[in-house]
Amino acid sequence: MMKHFDTDYMEGAHPMVMQRLLETNLEQTPGYGADDYCLQAKALVRKACGDESVDVHFLVGGTQTNATVIDALLSRHEGVLAATTAHINVHESGAVEASGHKVLTLPSHEGKVDAGEVRAYIDGFYADDTCGHMVAPGMLYISYPTEYGTLYTKRELAGLHAVCRDANIALYIDGARMGYGLASDAADLTLPELVGLCDVCYIGGTKVGALFGECVVAHAGRLKHFFPLVKQHGALLAKGRLLGLQFATLFADGLYLRIARRAVELAVKLKEGFRKNGYPPHIDSFTNQQFFTLPNDVIDALRQTATFETWGSRGDTDTTVRFVTSWATREEDIDELLRGLSHARRSPAKRG
Amino acid sequence: MMKHFDTDYMEGAHPMVMQRLLETNLEQTPGYGADDYCLQAKALVRKACGDESVDVHFLVGGTQTNATVIDALLSRHEGVLAATTAHINVHESGAVEASGHKVLTLPSHEGKVDAGEVRAYIDGFYADDTCGHMVAPGMLYISYPTEYGTLYTKRELAGLHAVCRDANIALYIDGARMGYGLASDAADLTLPELVGLCDVCYIGGTKVGALFGECVVAHAGRLKHFFPLVKQHGALLAKGRLLGLQFATLFADGLYLRIARRAVELAVKLKEGFRKNGYPPHIDSFTNQQFFTLPNDVIDALRQTATFETWGSRGDTDTTVRFVTSWATREEDIDELLRGLSHARRSPAKRG
Amino acid sequence: MMKHFDTDYMEGAHPMVMQRLLETNLEQTPGYGADDYCLQAKALVRKACGDESVDVHFLVGGTQTNATVIDALLSRHEGVLAATTAHINVHESGAVEASGHKVLTLPSHEGKVDAGEVRAYIDGFYADDTCGHMVAPGMLYISYPTEYGTLYTKRELAGLHAVCRDANIALYIDGARMGYGLASDAADLTLPELVGLCDVCYIGGTKVGALFGECVVAHAGRLKHFFPLVKQHGALLAKGRLLGLQFATLFADGLYLRIARRAVELAVKLKEGFRKNGYPPHIDSFTNQQFFTLPNDVIDALRQTATFETWGSRGDTDTTVRFVTSWATREEDIDELLRGLSHARRSPAKRG
Amino acid sequence: MMKHFDTDYMEGAHPMVMQRLLETNLEQTPGYGADDYCLQAKALVRKACGDESVDVHFLVGGTQTNATVIDALLSRHEGVLAATTAHINVHESGAVEASGHKVLTLPSHEGKVDAGEVRAYIDGFYADDTCGHMVAPGMLYISYPTEYGTLYTKRELAGLHAVCRDANIALYIDGARMGYGLASDAADLTLPELVGLCDVCYIGGTKVGALFGECVVAHAGRLKHFFPLVKQHGALLAKGRLLGLQFATLFADGLYLRIARRAVELAVKLKEGFRKNGYPPHIDSFTNQQFFTLPNDVIDALRQTATFETWGSRGDTDTTVRFVTSWATREEDIDELLRGLSHARRSPAKRG
Repeated sequence: MMKHFDTDYMEGAHPMVMQRLLETNLEQTPGYGADDYCLQAKALVRKACGDESVDVHFLVGGTQTNATVIDALLSRHEGVLAATTAHINVHESGAVEASGHKVLTLPSHEGKVDAGEVRAYIDGFYADDTCGHMVAPGMLYISYPTEYGTLYTKRELAGLHAVCRDANIALYIDGARMGYGLASDAADLTLPELVGLCDVCYIGGTKVGALFGECVVAHAGRLKHFFPLVKQHGALLAKGRLLGLQFATLFADGLYLRIARRAVELAVKLKEGFRKNGYPPHIDSFTNQQFFTLPNDVIDALRQTATFETWGSRGDTDTTVRFVTSWATREEDIDELLRGLSHARRSPAKRG
Repeated sequence: MMKHFDTDYMEGAHPMVMQRLLETNLEQTPGYGADDYCLQAKALVRKACGDESVDVHFLVGGTQTNATVIDALLSRHEGVLAATTAHINVHESGAVEASGHKVLTLPSHEGKVDAGEVRAYIDGFYADDTCGHMVAPGMLYISYPTEYGTLYTKRELAGLHAVCRDANIALYIDGARMGYGLASDAADLTLPELVGLCDVCYIGGTKVGALFGECVVAHAGRLKHFFPLVKQHGALLAKGRLLGLQFATLFADGLYLRIARRAVELAVKLKEGFRKNGYPPHIDSFTNQQFFTLPNDVIDALRQTATFETWGSRGDTDTTVRFVTSWATREEDIDELLRGLSHARRSPAKRG
Repeated sequence: MMKHFDTDYMEGAHPMVMQRLLETNLEQTPGYGADDYCLQAKALVRKACGDESVDVHFLVGGTQTNATVIDALLSRHEGVLAATTAHINVHESGAVEASGHKVLTLPSHEGKVDAGEVRAYIDGFYADDTCGHMVAPGMLYISYPTEYGTLYTKRELAGLHAVCRDANIALYIDGARMGYGLASDAADLTLPELVGLCDVCYIGGTKVGALFGECVVAHAGRLKHFFPLVKQHGALLAKGRLLGLQFATLFADGLYLRIARRAVELAVKLKEGFRKNGYPPHIDSFTNQQFFTLPNDVIDALRQTATFETWGSRGDTDTTVRFVTSWATREEDIDELLRGLSHARRSPAKRG
Repeated sequence: MMKHFDTDYMEGAHPMVMQRLLETNLEQTPGYGADDYCLQAKALVRKACGDESVDVHFLVGGTQTNATVIDALLSRHEGVLAATTAHINVHESGAVEASGHKVLTLPSHEGKVDAGEVRAYIDGFYADDTCGHMVAPGMLYISYPTEYGTLYTKRELAGLHAVCRDANIALYIDGARMGYGLASDAADLTLPELVGLCDVCYIGGTKVGALFGECVVAHAGRLKHFFPLVKQHGALLAKGRLLGLQFATLFADGLYLRIARRAVELAVKLKEGFRKNGYPPHIDSFTNQQFFTLPNDVIDALRQTATFETWGSRGDTDTTVRFVTSWATREEDIDELLRGLSHARRSPAKRG
């Protein structure tokens, strides 16, 4: 049977989440997040963040969360700083621009931005005599982990935080895969530390055990008039309790990080397996995304029993590909993939 | 125990929908609607619409569906005609305007617009020498049923369709509660007839048996470049199969209309019960929303065992309120509410 | 020779304005308003407003000024209250909505809004349980004079100002024809009084002696980051000195009000002439716009020697029309028009 | 007396333009471009373009022209390709994004884009499996001359035209300084050839002899519903005849190119003078903008009698600066500047 490593949203939800949805299915609750499950989830998230004062909001998906938060944080004359490779700059169909804001790009270092370069951008902006005609840097967007599976160290994040604080702009962290970052052996950050080093972040549910849903955490007062803005962005779920219930389940007893950790362990096993077969990683990721540049023949052979994404476009002889694990990945699937790789190396598929 | 008649999205999903979500939970499928459940659902919807050529798309919620479809149908210089009471004009936090489009208002006749008045608006627009400075009517938005529970007759809809065809503008039907309209005894329209008399419509799932989800039906070629626009509006669900699976279940064997019919029968029973108690309906609705103008004392008494919405703001002595049934409403809940009403009439609660 | 009463922007600029443009034509000045003429004009406008602390900005045209100021005053979740007949609601091609904001309409009383109705709208909004889903009233737009030539009294304006202050929203006055209002015998307001009773207004130049140009007056701190927003709206004139020079000329020795007064006197003469001929005004305007409902035959006869606008669309037998005077109108043109009217009454043109 | 080389919009208008404005000042004409001067100007521009079938529109300024044309050419899901250094990407305060569109950046080669790189971008986009989530390249923006004073050759422009035609996207040329390009000895293109090799362009007036005004030339049918869009963008001048009159004057007998040519000759003289003094140009421009990297001491010395812009931010020892000539520049001003340079080399100013 075909195994799929394309991405981390190919299954439904963690069985405990499904069970809670089923148990509460016929209860009647008010809509739009005014229910007890949302209250309960917010309390649990605040506790996990180690900060009782943060505001917590639940939205449905990542692109809408990014667009809504960015819209809330920026004035009309401001843009959002982000790596050229940032999801908002590449893969959200221009949702940020559709809300009227420019993405101001910074060099990407395997998905990360450099605090020194951020500072230089901001300083350069204000040193430019024509800056009144330019889009002002109004906030910084980063992702944790990045689109390349890499992680900021605590020191790096503190550096970015300091630059933003000095420039009086907000630091926002897209945590679509936050669990897979925090649960990594390579992470030197806890969730409370991460929350303490940004103004707003979101903890991704869609990719980490929920059916769908993203949890926005904002320092008090940072997201003004957020409720009508969420509605305006079409991001307000009628049955808000579905979001509350899922996050309450994921944050009740550490489930979120526990299932993320398992995915990361299997991803690292996959990476080491490829390395042993002579394919060192394209990027040395310690999270649930793994990148390799493989001969096209090997890729074609692997695709007889597994699916995975081409990263960018197919090259003439070699192509970079991505393998992703999730909370639902089973160890035997990794083993089978690695057996397939070992076989493919020895007898690559014929080109058509 | 408190019973809730506030709205039709207070429960989860129909048990058969939940069962299917559970059964398929660990299957792996591609994201963004490219899975077999979406294919299957599209085929079933096309069949129910009696038109194999229509395009079918699945989105998550009503406001985002309206904003995305309207954005797809209008050019930048055009606006959308709608009743002053239309959901897009009142209760979507300006989502249409946030996409850059004006809502051009028409008189509301218990939530409905009149074909003659639509024609007069369009004719008046083009007869005005200054129309180049005005927002051109680029489409017509109506809802079926309306926000007041009323229904267009086939003849009325045909009239609107003819006006739009003559003016070469699109007719779009917001069917957030479409099931509760089509299943009503007062409806003289079938789904195929309704689809045949518009350019685009959506069949609401959130309020009619799904956990969430709306199904857009568009005549071929009417919604161009819709996929990236859905993404841009943050309305593309990663696990698209959740939408496909739900609509495949609801449309597999007539479940959608069957559960809607039950809700409408109970709503009519509620209406007749109020009438017998001396409270004729504020609007003679034959769908799942019922409106009454009640003495404030009666309202306060009823609120000891039931919740329901105030329609507009509270009056000095009487207030209009709304009761809504859903696929999950039980007959005993209606009976209990009516007993409470009968009791309240005789001994109204004291004002605080 | 044909005389034109269509509108007040059919000529160039007052001769003194042209003379100053000519005298300074080859001087070199920095762009974008950083020149001495702009400084000088700002000082003169502040003096005329009787408030040294106001901010003064120069833009090119009325629609762009309205769109830019409204964009600067509103948050994303807010809309602008305005009469249904307001220029921004009807004749600006949806410029406000194109910036993402909704126009929230109020009843028009010959172009004016009523303070009680504004207060009721705002109170009703906050009393509505669903107001989180609605566009919040974020500012009030009025025009002085209105699109119907009518004027708010000082008492009426003070009433609106109080409502806005109580609701903590901005009051903005579109003064495209402000001179023709302030110079009217019916005005009981001075410019300093008007400025004191609003948050932001603009003093129209295009229609009152300038080639083009509008002068925005804002209480200190009310328009934040306005310069880049003006640029973003395409409203920043490269040769800003052209605007400064024109307003410096118009405000140097009372020229602005002097030429406006002459136009208003001629408009009143025109109104009285129509009245004597049996055509009382449609609206009793004391400014430079005059409205009459005339038999179509009389209209056709008048159009043999004069042009003027149809107000709305042509009726079957009678039609409302508008005559506008300007700083450039000559008394003999009014006399000739009235002679034509007197003649037309007696021998109306044959219909075609 | 101080001489200014900061930019090419520091003076008013060419004396012949002023004379025509004065002569016609009290004529009455209809507004918004419906006057005879606009008709006349359109005919003259069509003739100069060698194509009777093109549509001609007049707007006020460059940023608004770019934003309006781009908005007219793009669908909501599309973005505009442009060099990273493009004016729309850097110096228009995000006006393109404020209309909802993304600027998709290409490498800048002294302000120019390369046809091969444009083709590779478009091919890469459609080869990417995730392109449905990305902003589609919907048009190409270039400037002639570029922001660096450089010029596309006929062959280069034909290459870009072919790429755009193959991809079925529009090619738009920002000609804010078009006269200074076409009049250059280095230009191997005529205006008819340039118009033939694009879909839409604008011929800049503000910088080339007009008080203000830009003339959009579009192949028939390319800009749909442009009038209301111009109004919506606040770019419709009430007294449209001011634009018509200016362009009619500039295009009546070749005035436009004649005055541009003089500016370019003086710019080249300036460049050669700097070269002789040991400062070869930073970019070898043959148009009216000249760039040099000079020691800061020399810059400070020159600034005692002349003003000019720093290009980017000031360096530690050397800084790139820009000198711009215009139709109003006099030969003696260039001579004096060069004398100053010669002097500054020998005795640079002391640093503070």
